[in-house]
Amino acid sequence: MEKKINKVTLLHSGMIVTMDSQNRVYRNGAILIDGDTIIDIGQSSQLLYNYQDHAHSGIIDLQGKIVLPGFINTHVHTSQQLARGIADDVDLLTWLHKRGQHVSEMARAVEQLGLRACLTQSTMDCGQGLPEKWALHTTEYCIQSQKQLYDKHHDTADGRIKIWLGVRQIMNATDKLLLETRDTAKELKTGIHMHVAEIPYENELVVNTREVAHGTVTYLEKIKVLEGNLLAAHSVWVSDNEIDFLSKAKVKVSHCPAAAMRMLGFAPIKEMLDAGICVSLGTDGAPSNNRMSIVDEMYLASLINKGREAFTKGTTDPTALPAETILKMATINGAESVLWDNEIGSLQARKRADLIIVDPFSWSMVPVNDCISSLVYCMRTENIESVMCNGQWIMKDRKILTVNEGDVLLSAKKASSELLRRAGITIPSRMNVI
Amino acid sequence: MEKKINKVTLLHSGMIVTMDSQNRVYRNGAILIDGDTIIDIGQSSQLLYNYQDHAHSGIIDLQGKIVLPGFINTHVHTSQQLARGIADDVDLLTWLHKRGQHVSEMARAVEQLGLRACLTQSTMDCGQGLPEKWALHTTEYCIQSQKQLYDKHHDTADGRIKIWLGVRQIMNATDKLLLETRDTAKELKTGIHMHVAEIPYENELVVNTREVAHGTVTYLEKIKVLEGNLLAAHSVWVSDNEIDFLSKAKVKVSHCPAAAMRMLGFAPIKEMLDAGICVSLGTDGAPSNNRMSIVDEMYLASLINKGREAFTKGTTDPTALPAETILKMATINGAESVLWDNEIGSLQARKRADLIIVDPFSWSMVPVNDCISSLVYCMRTENIESVMCNGQWIMKDRKILTVNEGDVLLSAKKASSELLRRAGITIPSRMNVI
Repeated sequence: MEKKINKVTLLHSGMIVTMDSQNRVYRNGAILIDGDTIIDIGQSSQLLYNYQDHAHSGIIDLQGKIVLPGFINTHVHTSQQLARGIADDVDLLTWLHKRGQHVSEMARAVEQLGLRACLTQSTMDCGQGLPEKWALHTTEYCIQSQKQLYDKHHDTADGRIKIWLGVRQIMNATDKLLLETRDTAKELKTGIHMHVAEIPYENELVVNTREVAHGTVTYLEKIKVLEGNLLAAHSVWVSDNEIDFLSKAKVKVSHCPAAAMRMLGFAPIKEMLDAGICVSLGTDGAPSNNRMSIVDEMYLASLINKGREAFTKGTTDPTALPAETILKMATINGAESVLWDNEIGSLQARKRADLIIVDPFSWSMVPVNDCISSLVYCMRTENIESVMCNGQWIMKDRKILTVNEGDVLLSAKKASSELLRRAGITIPSRMNVI
Repeated sequence: MEKKINKVTLLHSGMIVTMDSQNRVYRNGAILIDGDTIIDIGQSSQLLYNYQDHAHSGIIDLQGKIVLPGFINTHVHTSQQLARGIADDVDLLTWLHKRGQHVSEMARAVEQLGLRACLTQSTMDCGQGLPEKWALHTTEYCIQSQKQLYDKHHDTADGRIKIWLGVRQIMNATDKLLLETRDTAKELKTGIHMHVAEIPYENELVVNTREVAHGTVTYLEKIKVLEGNLLAAHSVWVSDNEIDFLSKAKVKVSHCPAAAMRMLGFAPIKEMLDAGICVSLGTDGAPSNNRMSIVDEMYLASLINKGREAFTKGTTDPTALPAETILKMATINGAESVLWDNEIGSLQARKRADLIIVDPFSWSMVPVNDCISSLVYCMRTENIESVMCNGQWIMKDRKILTVNEGDVLLSAKKASSELLRRAGITIPSRMNVI
């Protein structure tokens, strides 16, 4: 009993934005956490009265700060982080020939950092339309190696790691790979992640080679691969019909605003949300995003989807994708997208304690005239003061507790230089460097 | 002589991005500043050898950090700052009836903060298409009151303040106001700031009531108001012909990416730049932007102008508006836009010492594989560590030196609540607040 009491934390006197199904916000609220789990949530006065004797070692006065569920990034290429900046303003990415994905190393990093993640190996068993030198594997190998990763890592790190199946994209996948991925995911009860309808060329190729009327989504529907456990990344070039297919099959979509604007085009996000599709937010990889923050993606998602209306209707629609919708995309929709909303995505009793504390009292958010919109339009990554995952503080008062941040930055700098050297990549100078 | 030596500062061992006409970047450079002026700029070794004995009280080792000219925000409604967040996701802004602009108070703030600014009173002498209650003035009053502001404030605060003439927009301006503004600006040798071609409705109204073929720009050209001292804000809805008019007259354009995406539409920035127009960056006011940082506007400007190509060509163009162009927009183009490039906008001997120091060694910029693109795509406002204006440190090592930041934030919070109360504005709740 002594042990349990020591793990109890009571956060009180903050604004708790729960993102639950009733959109509850406690103006002066509190959360009681025991181990990895939220035990109670409600008015500060009530929780202080009920629990302050039990949480003597972990009572934290939020002093009016804002608590939100931890943000969920539903599409990120962790293996590209060191390549930040090498693909800016270039028209065709000269990819490294062997982009090793090292899922086991990702799992080690996630475990050590205290994060939660669904990890995926992006598989390819054919090379249609791509450089010959790309590393390809047999369908058999693609499936078996993923099963091995699943056996080794799924549900490890106190349940913070899940292994999903991955298909890079339709141009690199035979029908056999697509169908076996679907069946294997069903067998393992896990999800599938895949880039879908990223560029017009992809759809054209599918129309020309696989004999369907529109593109990737139409083809996936035809071969019965669209299911509720498929998380489609980007999905920029989809027709009204295809939105309907995605909606009926309950496919989830990861909207990556920065990557979309830079390289892909404007996805019909408003139409997808109107059709009842669960749309969440992703950063994509560092070379196509650079900033790598869901906070920036929230801001971008709101702006570009208002702006996009100018092209469909002649004027922008400032009411499109309001702040509350954007917040859902970054939290509860993110959890649904990764099939984990039974445990995360909202602050509710019996869910895991994944949360962030936002300090709204800096130059960037004052004055807070509309708290919810302020979290989308004004909040900066730097307003996030503390992060808890699975009941553990990963960052507290702006200090990362699980690794030495300075060491990691130094290693990243070194590793990045070495990587570019080995790959023979030199960055052309944009200015007259002397 | 003793006095002069004390004011000499030598910044050395940093990457100096000059933004001069030869795009010079000193990889290991130094800048010598005496009083308000840059005296010399060049290789660290050379400047240290020449000057370290003279600058004994102000030698600063930049330790590889990056120095840039101070960013120039060419369109911002300072009087709207307290209204941050009151216009998010609303379709028509219920403006405060008396939006007092208080130019003299702005001048006081600029002087105290140590900033540099061109201040403008936004005048209106007719109310076409706007609420009856809006405060209107006679043409005579509009011109005379601005002349008084000019006499009182122009070239004050050690030359950091200039007074420009302002016309809110064509729907609120008679021909008489437009022409007298042009003539008065010529007489006072100053600039004119005006919102131009913001929304399709504006152009339609001009076509219907002022008998020209397209819109505002066409009309301003017809009555000979387009001149090199006009800084047009937004300029979203301009035809190819009108781009030609703007280019020939050397009119400057302030591109406000966030406001454009949220409310106005996508300006043809690439076309304007291709036509040789000097395009700079603005944040617009807090209610239509919230974040209020030129650093974010750089990121947005790059992304949305790449994305916009998807609508004109069917695919995005990742090479549109490369990082070096965006950096120019935020610096030297900004200076040209505000008719001040003889003194600011680039780091060169004999120009004023307006500069920022960027720390690129944090999580947000590591690894820096491409320095110039990193300043546009990765840099965050928070990477700016120090700011100097006119030779004075305004912010040093992230601490603002000219005012007490905490006091200002507290005052802003109070004033904002009072303002909303007096104006009878209540913000509807977006969620279920309990």
